[in-house]
Amino acid sequence: MPIVKSIRTLRSLLQKARLKKKTIGFVPTMGALHGGHLSLIRICQKENDLTVLSIFVNPTQFGPQEDFKNYPREIKRDILLAKKENADIIFYPSAEEMYPSGYLSCVEVKEPGNILCGQFRPGHFQGVATVVAKLLNIVEPDVLYLGQKDAQQAIILKKMVKDLNFSVNVKICPTVRGQDGLALSSRNSYLTQEERQEAPILYQALLQAKKRIEQGEDNSQNIIGFIREHIEKNSSGKIQYIECVEGGSLRSLKKLKGKILIALAVFFGKTRLIDNILVNVK
Amino acid sequence: MPIVKSIRTLRSLLQKARLKKKTIGFVPTMGALHGGHLSLIRICQKENDLTVLSIFVNPTQFGPQEDFKNYPREIKRDILLAKKENADIIFYPSAEEMYPSGYLSCVEVKEPGNILCGQFRPGHFQGVATVVAKLLNIVEPDVLYLGQKDAQQAIILKKMVKDLNFSVNVKICPTVRGQDGLALSSRNSYLTQEERQEAPILYQALLQAKKRIEQGEDNSQNIIGFIREHIEKNSSGKIQYIECVEGGSLRSLKKLKGKILIALAVFFGKTRLIDNILVNVK
Repeated sequence: MPIVKSIRTLRSLLQKARLKKKTIGFVPTMGALHGGHLSLIRICQKENDLTVLSIFVNPTQFGPQEDFKNYPREIKRDILLAKKENADIIFYPSAEEMYPSGYLSCVEVKEPGNILCGQFRPGHFQGVATVVAKLLNIVEPDVLYLGQKDAQQAIILKKMVKDLNFSVNVKICPTVRGQDGLALSSRNSYLTQEERQEAPILYQALLQAKKRIEQGEDNSQNIIGFIREHIEKNSSGKIQYIECVEGGSLRSLKKLKGKILIALAVFFGKTRLIDNILVNVK
Repeated sequence: MPIVKSIRTLRSLLQKARLKKKTIGFVPTMGALHGGHLSLIRICQKENDLTVLSIFVNPTQFGPQEDFKNYPREIKRDILLAKKENADIIFYPSAEEMYPSGYLSCVEVKEPGNILCGQFRPGHFQGVATVVAKLLNIVEPDVLYLGQKDAQQAIILKKMVKDLNFSVNVKICPTVRGQDGLALSSRNSYLTQEERQEAPILYQALLQAKKRIEQGEDNSQNIIGFIREHIEKNSSGKIQYIECVEGGSLRSLKKLKGKILIALAVFFGKTRLIDNILVNVK
């Protein structure tokens, strides 16, 4: 399994595959691979001739006060895991390869980048959209695989692909969870043992909220209040936001109807966790 | 010569050509074709198996007070001219095809988009970068042909292609001028007979400035002053800006050295004309 650091080398490898009419699937990651990433690789593997995995901790999507420096980097372990899942190529560029001196360009998906996580992480989704636009131009995959865990990111990237006419299909794959329901995330490694024990409350609260909606509750403020109370009563979690939005546009909903996304961000100690659930109300 | 309005149809046409290993050259225009555009088509024709010409008056690159509504639209004449130059495909989409309801994304090249013309046309180069990013994703050409007449646009698009890793070569082709030196432009049609007679002063002033630099003048303020005086003394032109910048980055220069771009924008009546000249000082 080649581990490629240069854009030029990757392009020439992929060009050869394309000439042999191989289909290319692409899984972009920041490494520190967990079961969620591995499930994306597995799905990609099944659906394409060639699976390209990128590992790049993208500096432009981190705010100045965020965890860029401390973000877990475990490249040797990542390579072993990717090999085990039969990924075909790992693209592992340096920051200089991706953003050479004099770099000036960016891509933005305006509205949905400024709500939910975007309110609290200014510039984050511009960083994400830009790096994925670059990666799509480098890899030119047939299919792009993203995780539902980062729901806002997935929706923004799907919108970018549509708006800017990238010729790639986007597949959003289910969140992978621990046995206790906690969504897998590279940032879970920051949690203390105590925080780790409390964190599954997020998914429990989301599941119970979903049940309430399915039982007829259609007021978003009631649902948000219920989730808030459930988390605050049963854990030390500090809520950053809880929102009920329309699942496609991410626009705020008062009355819960149609395809709803309930999304939240909660701090356990210094660690910020996000999670979400989709509910379909007919 | 097919005239294609739908992105999907264009893609399937081009995919067939690509499977036959044909190289694709691309000339994006806003129509109202003149000798400058035709020279791009001719160069593209020579260097590629297939020449795609796009004609799209892009609304997002016009300011609210600008000439979007009145911009010359001469599609029948354009088709005849393109046929004569043996363009292979004309892509002529509607605004709805390019920006369907709910469109939200944009591409920006930060620094060079905010100087020269960018100071006076906020959002203009974001509009240009966005539509060309879309067109590159739709056409996926081997080579993109741009005119030196719109020097800032060409430099910004070249930078976008490099920064965002579009796999296309960018060729910037020489400005085509009338016998009296006026750079060909679709906006020349706005000029009154009198203004048209005055307008060649721009290139005369640029040529004389170039001569002065080659003779040893290396102070940009002196050159700018000289051009200003030459235009103001000999015409009714109202200067918007005259600048001497570094030819690659478009950064302002005090001392003239290296690859210099002298660029200007001047109003004749209500018509804004731009022109520029490259000077190499060793």
